[in-house]
Amino acid sequence: METRINKLLHMLKEKNVDSLFLTSKANIFYLSNYYTEPHERLVAIYLDQKDDPLLILPAMEKQDAVQAGWKGALLPYTDDENPWKLFSNYIKQLKRKPKSLAIEKDHLTVDRYESIKGVLPSTELIEGKELVSDLRLIKDKEEMDTLKHAAKLADYGIKVGVDALQVGKRELDVIAEIEYALKKEGVREMSFSTMVLAGKNTASPHGTPGLNKIKAGDLVLFDLGVVYNGYCSDITRTIAYQEINPEQEKIYQAVLRGQEKAIEAAQLGKTVGTLDQAARHYISAAGYGEYFTHRIGHGIGIDVHEYPSLTSENNLTLQSGMSFTIEPGIYVPNVGGVRIEDEIVMTEEGAELLTTYPKELQVIE
Amino acid sequence: METRINKLLHMLKEKNVDSLFLTSKANIFYLSNYYTEPHERLVAIYLDQKDDPLLILPAMEKQDAVQAGWKGALLPYTDDENPWKLFSNYIKQLKRKPKSLAIEKDHLTVDRYESIKGVLPSTELIEGKELVSDLRLIKDKEEMDTLKHAAKLADYGIKVGVDALQVGKRELDVIAEIEYALKKEGVREMSFSTMVLAGKNTASPHGTPGLNKIKAGDLVLFDLGVVYNGYCSDITRTIAYQEINPEQEKIYQAVLRGQEKAIEAAQLGKTVGTLDQAARHYISAAGYGEYFTHRIGHGIGIDVHEYPSLTSENNLTLQSGMSFTIEPGIYVPNVGGVRIEDEIVMTEEGAELLTTYPKELQVIE
Repeated sequence: METRINKLLHMLKEKNVDSLFLTSKANIFYLSNYYTEPHERLVAIYLDQKDDPLLILPAMEKQDAVQAGWKGALLPYTDDENPWKLFSNYIKQLKRKPKSLAIEKDHLTVDRYESIKGVLPSTELIEGKELVSDLRLIKDKEEMDTLKHAAKLADYGIKVGVDALQVGKRELDVIAEIEYALKKEGVREMSFSTMVLAGKNTASPHGTPGLNKIKAGDLVLFDLGVVYNGYCSDITRTIAYQEINPEQEKIYQAVLRGQEKAIEAAQLGKTVGTLDQAARHYISAAGYGEYFTHRIGHGIGIDVHEYPSLTSENNLTLQSGMSFTIEPGIYVPNVGGVRIEDEIVMTEEGAELLTTYPKELQVIE
Repeated sequence: METRINKLLHMLKEKNVDSLFLTSKANIFYLSNYYTEPHERLVAIYLDQKDDPLLILPAMEKQDAVQAGWKGALLPYTDDENPWKLFSNYIKQLKRKPKSLAIEKDHLTVDRYESIKGVLPSTELIEGKELVSDLRLIKDKEEMDTLKHAAKLADYGIKVGVDALQVGKRELDVIAEIEYALKKEGVREMSFSTMVLAGKNTASPHGTPGLNKIKAGDLVLFDLGVVYNGYCSDITRTIAYQEINPEQEKIYQAVLRGQEKAIEAAQLGKTVGTLDQAARHYISAAGYGEYFTHRIGHGIGIDVHEYPSLTSENNLTLQSGMSFTIEPGIYVPNVGGVRIEDEIVMTEEGAELLTTYPKELQVIE
């Protein structure tokens, strides 16, 4: 953690920025190992070049942060105290104010921005989100191992889900069995709301699972992931239940081959955009371009969706240490949908798949 | 939904505000019945006095919003499109710009604020969060019924958890059983990460459950809730497992009697602050004031924590239709903690408890 903070301070210095104020749960975890869900309460890290890193947090979580390994200064506040007032006193006692302060514009809310302005009226507030996201973009060995472990648990979740299928079972029954099995393996949190969709429900990329019953001839789509030691996984598989018709099979093969094209395109030095382009080109040629309604994928790490966004326009270069999903999908209204998603890390040897549950079309008996 | 939008437009008019821009998932659901987890993607509702309400959303979710009942205008965008550019074109085509626009300062991020400024450079952006939260504060009959149903499911979750206790079981095993049972009842999402803490782990109000095993003499704390039709529940119970020592019992009784004092104080016309004061007064007199480290509760509805915050300083008047939690706790480091939490709605007859799982001290065999 100290290394990450030092790296950040170094980056700030290079950009001639005096200080940094972070409030996103993911960045706080990245710099402190303190994993919290603050809801509406303020949790923040303040860094400047001269003083100890400062953690502002609810008083009742002070011990949690110390146990997680935080070694810097602490500014705990109770529910009856105004943390901005305490922060203002803290700054006053430093007897100097930063000329510039980097903030996370994609996370900091307007009222917190105004509170910072109140404490530091003459400080220039500038965009700082790329500082930490540039650091977080490249995963180190330990992070990669954590991601791998999280991905193995996601593979296992798919296996449990596929094994649980039965005529008449509801989507939620299958979700119950998947999450039960994962919790027994030590998973506390899923990285997002587990999705099991059957039949026509698969035609919405962000459909809501419910009491819909599984029947022969359904496509069944599973999209799930876990949080393991603060890092997320994310996998999607689609299977055919008992039978499959020619159109479903054609869609499945278009998605699978499109995904393979994107994975082949994932080479060091190429741009991120080529992945989406490769899959989209294949799927369009197969006649389903208009039904592939989202980007090919997203970065993954502490956040299940993080920088970078894998759109066809993205010119960022693929580098060793990057981790992201590749997840083309085809969704035909009133027919159904297929999505196949894997998690990839880029290593010096090229793309490595973290999720490994089989992808060839399965018609489950 | 139309009624709510009309009420909001009326409130805007009274405050002489031309328009409103909402981005929080909860407010979007409140006005559209469209329940979505947009992650980093923009979902927004734009209201002005003269045009159809506008919903900006990812193109792939268009059908979901229409199915949820959205009847206004739609501005869908794909992952390769910039929604702000589309919104700018939309505004241009209206051929008039609002003089003032209300925003949710506690939710809107700085970069989105700047994007709105880019589209509407001469429009004054003002705080609007209280407009919708004032509306959401008072629950109607249907919302109350939904909250009640969500609370019954939370009661059931506690029952399953208590029944599942066994020497050597881990906290996560108990969570697995609770969530499995709730999903079988049709629950898709918990309202927050289910908490089961045993022994010394109970001493942190926001502790993290894990592989810690339950043993005789432990206090076991359960804090959980579900999302039902978009509305949250939240309950906490603490029980003693197999045996209890005098200090644990003293703490338990102080929390229970403190909670009763707060519930007694919950009367129409009194202020919110009296609830925290009543419990805190009792718990301090019992010698545990310094270990009651958080506010007495929070509003609950679409968000599990929503307006108002039940601190001792809050002068808001208790009115029929308000729903909130009452949850004092005492956390003694290295000894353990007790919290007891109920959900309350205020009706014309006074306070009504929505959560009803027994609260008298239970020593489970």
